[in-house]
Amino acid sequence: MTDAAGAGRLLIRDLAQLVTPAATVVPARGAELGRVDVLEDAFILCEGEEIVGVGPMRELRALDGDVVELDGRGRCAIPGLVDCHTHACFAGDRVDEFSLRAAGATYEELHAQGGGIMSTVTATRAATEDELVAAVERHRGWMLRSGTTTFEAKSGYGLDRETELASLHAIRTAGGVATWLGAHAVPPEFDGANAYVEFALREVLPDAARLAEAADVFVERGAFDAGQARRYLTACRDAGLTVRLHGDQFTERGAIPLAVELRARSVDHLEATGEDGVRALARSEVVGVLLPASALFLARPMPPARALVDAGAAIALATDFNPGSAFCESLPLVCALAATQLGLGPAEALTACTLNAAHVVGRADRIGRLAVGYTADVVLLDAPDWRYLAYHLGGPIVADVVVAGARAELG
Amino acid sequence: MTDAAGAGRLLIRDLAQLVTPAATVVPARGAELGRVDVLEDAFILCEGEEIVGVGPMRELRALDGDVVELDGRGRCAIPGLVDCHTHACFAGDRVDEFSLRAAGATYEELHAQGGGIMSTVTATRAATEDELVAAVERHRGWMLRSGTTTFEAKSGYGLDRETELASLHAIRTAGGVATWLGAHAVPPEFDGANAYVEFALREVLPDAARLAEAADVFVERGAFDAGQARRYLTACRDAGLTVRLHGDQFTERGAIPLAVELRARSVDHLEATGEDGVRALARSEVVGVLLPASALFLARPMPPARALVDAGAAIALATDFNPGSAFCESLPLVCALAATQLGLGPAEALTACTLNAAHVVGRADRIGRLAVGYTADVVLLDAPDWRYLAYHLGGPIVADVVVAGARAELG
Repeated sequence: MTDAAGAGRLLIRDLAQLVTPAATVVPARGAELGRVDVLEDAFILCEGEEIVGVGPMRELRALDGDVVELDGRGRCAIPGLVDCHTHACFAGDRVDEFSLRAAGATYEELHAQGGGIMSTVTATRAATEDELVAAVERHRGWMLRSGTTTFEAKSGYGLDRETELASLHAIRTAGGVATWLGAHAVPPEFDGANAYVEFALREVLPDAARLAEAADVFVERGAFDAGQARRYLTACRDAGLTVRLHGDQFTERGAIPLAVELRARSVDHLEATGEDGVRALARSEVVGVLLPASALFLARPMPPARALVDAGAAIALATDFNPGSAFCESLPLVCALAATQLGLGPAEALTACTLNAAHVVGRADRIGRLAVGYTADVVLLDAPDWRYLAYHLGGPIVADVVVAGARAELG
Repeated sequence: MTDAAGAGRLLIRDLAQLVTPAATVVPARGAELGRVDVLEDAFILCEGEEIVGVGPMRELRALDGDVVELDGRGRCAIPGLVDCHTHACFAGDRVDEFSLRAAGATYEELHAQGGGIMSTVTATRAATEDELVAAVERHRGWMLRSGTTTFEAKSGYGLDRETELASLHAIRTAGGVATWLGAHAVPPEFDGANAYVEFALREVLPDAARLAEAADVFVERGAFDAGQARRYLTACRDAGLTVRLHGDQFTERGAIPLAVELRARSVDHLEATGEDGVRALARSEVVGVLLPASALFLARPMPPARALVDAGAAIALATDFNPGSAFCESLPLVCALAATQLGLGPAEALTACTLNAAHVVGRADRIGRLAVGYTADVVLLDAPDWRYLAYHLGGPIVADVVVAGARAELG
């Protein structure tokens, strides 16, 4: 490879399989979700940060000049995975709470011991911005080892001006797509959700809108109701942010109708979504982001993925990585859960965490496919068949990761 | 380290935590299951294949002569994990069947397409013994990366004399504890289960008994009934083998009463076990081996783990690694499932896949604890708290593995 940044070439050759979503409309929905192109004995040619060639080995022409080669024998290439829903910016952990819950402790007992989301808020407020950057970078390293080359991360463990903005800075510094989850919970120093929303919009939004690409709100009993969410998201949209919602995680509280009304990019969770919600989402442009690792972690019902896809709704898959309800950054594990718990085939799962997830983070023109002109983000699976991504539950299937045309150190 | 085999010393120092089961009775049951000793700022000293010292750093005395040191800072040591139930000797895979099932195919459709256990039997019979050794070694490498230092593996994909014996040879060659699962399914060339059991006992048992340590049988509708299992296991016991059973996976067919009657070492699966079975197991010496990754993979109910432990039954945890119903070799993932799906605390899960699993494979005097005199099999977790073993769902928590006093190459 030449020394000139962006000018080097990388040839991934002799791949057992090369697989890419084949949907013609983005986000993919219905039967389009499960359409993938599979090339056998294939190559990918990258130049600088871009893919400049993809095809069967027999069509590979002789290359002049310096080219770094990566051996693809016995491996399958898929697009770099895109995690479109994480809470990767936090300090501390919740392993005490996890252990108590595993042994049967109730939420009340956990709350009495200082557990729950506010314990992470306390730890995150106590961290410096450098410590938050280090935390997000550590989490990013884990994600990379699992094949995630693009990740979204939300603030939401600050809930004060300083920590929310520091969190968004940290996420950007660590290379994440930043979402301002200003309305994650109501911190105890405020007299209710309305007063907190008032504060957040007045004191935090102006700066948050310069740092984040999207805004998000937790619509749930004990968090924010639909009216408060409408007020928050409308102001965020007016400030130029894409809007997203956490909805229907434990109870249906109007998140889907509000998402449709506001033309939100996504509504995420949906474990409690009923038939009306499925129909409403299917008629809309809003993507349903499903988080089966979170449902598993909390031993909650799985979201109605099959019903959503069959009704024609667009879905994406993400990890929900966070310290309390999904300490899991592995999209391959999420794909295994999709296949075993959600009734999604491997091809549907792949599109849901590549192309459709890229749409959720506003980058479907650049990432989520292995095709000429796309960013050269590639995962090489140590498997004879790309569907091991979902099949090899918890296994070491990520052999190599290429990010923007360069082989990544997996640590 | 000196060159003399077995004479070298390895010091693992400055461990954030060192954790070992503290049960005084083996197998641990009831409250004993959750008793672990946790030492902070600790060391482990190994000499040859054995642990010769364990304690807090302040008690570490100066060591004369050559000692290899391993840095334990920021890491936690647990005993090498013991997988006491796998089907790691097979050729081929079942990813086609997995994909069809994920997308909603019925078992009848799968059968019509050549799926199911007999497809693995066909592939395994077609493999040479060298190919089987290579397969078990590949699977063993995956296990090692997940922290498994001792694994049991069953035959059962041969179901003819030659392939069953070749499978047991291959398991031993690859370092596994061999179990003869001669009664896994009835191959189609036999006229029913009785005729097959007759053949297996007459033609295979005499040699299998020299290669295997235990015998196992699948008690289930469509496989073997309790009468056939009694005949098979009694003959195996008389030939010197420890006896085990697959029971109550889909339906209760008398496996637990038979296990108690025959003083079996274990009865494995138990997803369908009811209250009577729980009580019967609790009154016995038989270990219930729980396989939550298999239940997850097949989207089946989880076994009644909490009820078993609370009733006083001894349990162990294992992966059930196999190509059809649990393509998962990760005991850390099994521990995460134990905590989130089975209601077991991290300490209970740890004892269940170390000390109690060691008992199931007849080695509790040598492995399953970090204590002086035990084999120096150690897993170093890349985590500030050992409970991340269960908490970090699907994460890269195994930093280093020591097998019999030597640091293993994790590939």
